[in-house]
Amino acid sequence: MSTSTLGVKENRTPPFPASSTVEVDQRNDKGWTALMFAARNGNVDVINTLLEKGCDVNLVNKTGQTAQDIAFFWDQGNASKVLNDFVNKQNPDKQLRNYFSLNYLDRCSEQRKKEDWLQSKIREECTRFIAFSELKPFVVPLEDRTKRWRYTLAKLKFCDVENYLKSNPPVVFLGVQRNSGPESLDHTMFAVDCTEGNIEDLKKCCPGGTFINPFPSALQLEPSEAGIFAEARSMLDWLYRYKYCGTCGSVTVIAEGGHKRVCEKKDCISNKGIHNTCYPRTDPSVIMLVVSPDGKKCLLGRKKSFPAKMWSCLAGFMEPGESIEDTVRREVEEESGVKVGKVEYHSSQPWPFPASLMLGCVATAVSEDVKVDEDEMEDAQWFRRPELVQMLTHQHPNGYYIPPEQAIAHQIIKSWVRMTANL
Amino acid sequence: MSTSTLGVKENRTPPFPASSTVEVDQRNDKGWTALMFAARNGNVDVINTLLEKGCDVNLVNKTGQTAQDIAFFWDQGNASKVLNDFVNKQNPDKQLRNYFSLNYLDRCSEQRKKEDWLQSKIREECTRFIAFSELKPFVVPLEDRTKRWRYTLAKLKFCDVENYLKSNPPVVFLGVQRNSGPESLDHTMFAVDCTEGNIEDLKKCCPGGTFINPFPSALQLEPSEAGIFAEARSMLDWLYRYKYCGTCGSVTVIAEGGHKRVCEKKDCISNKGIHNTCYPRTDPSVIMLVVSPDGKKCLLGRKKSFPAKMWSCLAGFMEPGESIEDTVRREVEEESGVKVGKVEYHSSQPWPFPASLMLGCVATAVSEDVKVDEDEMEDAQWFRRPELVQMLTHQHPNGYYIPPEQAIAHQIIKSWVRMTANL
Ligand SMILES: [Zn+2]
Ligand SMILES: [Zn+2]
Repeated sequence: MSTSTLGVKENRTPPFPASSTVEVDQRNDKGWTALMFAARNGNVDVINTLLEKGCDVNLVNKTGQTAQDIAFFWDQGNASKVLNDFVNKQNPDKQLRNYFSLNYLDRCSEQRKKEDWLQSKIREECTRFIAFSELKPFVVPLEDRTKRWRYTLAKLKFCDVENYLKSNPPVVFLGVQRNSGPESLDHTMFAVDCTEGNIEDLKKCCPGGTFINPFPSALQLEPSEAGIFAEARSMLDWLYRYKYCGTCGSVTVIAEGGHKRVCEKKDCISNKGIHNTCYPRTDPSVIMLVVSPDGKKCLLGRKKSFPAKMWSCLAGFMEPGESIEDTVRREVEEESGVKVGKVEYHSSQPWPFPASLMLGCVATAVSEDVKVDEDEMEDAQWFRRPELVQMLTHQHPNGYYIPPEQAIAHQIIKSWVRMTANL
Repeated sequence: MSTSTLGVKENRTPPFPASSTVEVDQRNDKGWTALMFAARNGNVDVINTLLEKGCDVNLVNKTGQTAQDIAFFWDQGNASKVLNDFVNKQNPDKQLRNYFSLNYLDRCSEQRKKEDWLQSKIREECTRFIAFSELKPFVVPLEDRTKRWRYTLAKLKFCDVENYLKSNPPVVFLGVQRNSGPESLDHTMFAVDCTEGNIEDLKKCCPGGTFINPFPSALQLEPSEAGIFAEARSMLDWLYRYKYCGTCGSVTVIAEGGHKRVCEKKDCISNKGIHNTCYPRTDPSVIMLVVSPDGKKCLLGRKKSFPAKMWSCLAGFMEPGESIEDTVRREVEEESGVKVGKVEYHSSQPWPFPASLMLGCVATAVSEDVKVDEDEMEDAQWFRRPELVQMLTHQHPNGYYIPPEQAIAHQIIKSWVRMTANL
């Protein structure tokens, strides 16, 4: 199963003059472009003309839909085909990239053990630091409020964080941003935990800079930075939460550019051979769209902690000794009483709250009766495709909606709505 | 991508008299049945006759192949079709079940918090205990040496382990074995760590019982018990390795039937809200078959730690903030220098050494030049399909072979060999 990329190429340089771009991609107050209206109405001639004029097919409206999505949702078969063919030519391997999966850094893991290299990179002029305080990222608001994305990570220089570094806070080597082109420089990137320092100093060197609550505000980071944020935050969380050796209780020290913790007790078992106690933790979890036996309905649930009127896929953590498929079956039955047969993988994304790996699946139910686990869930219900389209497009009569496109649940539901467009 | 189940139904009750079964499923010294020879030679009439006589299509020979595999490998198109149709009718959802994914227990996670229920179940007559010492399972050798499987887990009663339990060793509630039928009873199952006790006592109550090295001997457990072993061993490993609170270094106590560890320091952050420090750890890793850009070759590697002449898929641990697809790309490039484009999920299985989740993938390379990471790898090479068939069937002229069918690498390679049977 696959779909187009997120609208992450929105900021790429267009191969045509800026003046014509503005015109052809002009939006109304809901973020709709001419291409989207043509897709909604199935007007293939207008679509072709707009594509020839170089309009941006990856733009999304304020509810996160591309023209391609709109044509699919409204069953405009010919318009869909024209848009699909065009997008497929642009993105031949057609792999979905979820929001927090977008990380352009080369992790250069072989450099982590080279302490001299790391120390010299920290001081280099073109190195950049991402700062956190209590696991909140330091960001700069974006000026252009017509865009969906509101923040960019503040990229600080060594001189900006030099004072903080003196107290030896947790620092993580994130990787290297490779730049191509004749005069370009590679930027080495680090994350630094400024919780213990005076954060007012940081704000002085970066006017407008501010610390934001990671959830949900981090979902408004520019998508090209979402993966860097995910890497940095889950690593700093691990360094914060695992200060002591699980095996013997001694203090550990940070090593390998923040990617390892070493027990100070020399004869601790964790120092003989390789043990997972010394390495960052990632918690695999499953999130699944359950489809009814007849293929016409999907099961969505409401956890008690959800915002009012939001419905989403069921989800749960994997346990030791489980396969993805069995976790899906167990969690669906526990939460909703529905039995699942076949399970198909959809896509994955890290979820840095604090360090999950979300494994997205589509599951086929073999029963329909719903019995909600009242400890965890407020409700679980079957929804038909037309209602899901309304929930996706914020047009549901009861105000029901699903999570935003940055959540893998949104992408799985959207894929299913697309696949069943002609049912 | 999917394939038939492992040969795990080998011990099922056949719907025909035992005398005729013996005859129709008789094997030679390499474990080949008449059906396998007919498949090798593409003799469709013989295949149909044997299937009508009720032969077992799921039997495997000593190199782990079913008749279906054999027909595929030797390009017997008509025989393949007849066997596939027959197997698909038996197993309509066609989902691969990897070895350690086969766990028939209902984990009943909602019972874990009920201490009274757990205590009463521990003492129940039909409850069974799986014992471990230093993470080695206590097993009974199987009598019938013509089978591939050599061991069964010893299932002990309360009276067998009562003395051990007095010293309060780590105990894990594994789940409930549901039995159907008129007079059947559910068996609750626990794992108990007997490392501190006198293991000779255990051997007395279970003649022939013995502790085996988990790797590779656990690969010779009856497949129906592989998942129980995986669950039990990874849980006991976690209980052993994480005795202290990572956040404050205090001692922790085991709770919720072995599925939680609680910090003894009341005001520790880990006791406020839900934190991953208190729950078992599972380490997601990727394992991938890399296919050349022209689709005709696969990249296999040899780690320095591999047995001589064994080749396998490349593999590596996921890091915080990575998607499956990006980990595959990073690991392949790090280990072999080959660049990967599209990545497709194949199947998953837990790997309890100590607590990995193996995420199996097929990756399409966009480059071919191999540059081996000499720190980790001894070699990496491209292999064509005919050579892979030889390696799968232990007929390679250099003696090269791939891991056994219990390893997910075997299943991914076999799937690819099947898919490309007609290329
Ligand atoms: Zn230690
Ligand atoms: Zn604690």
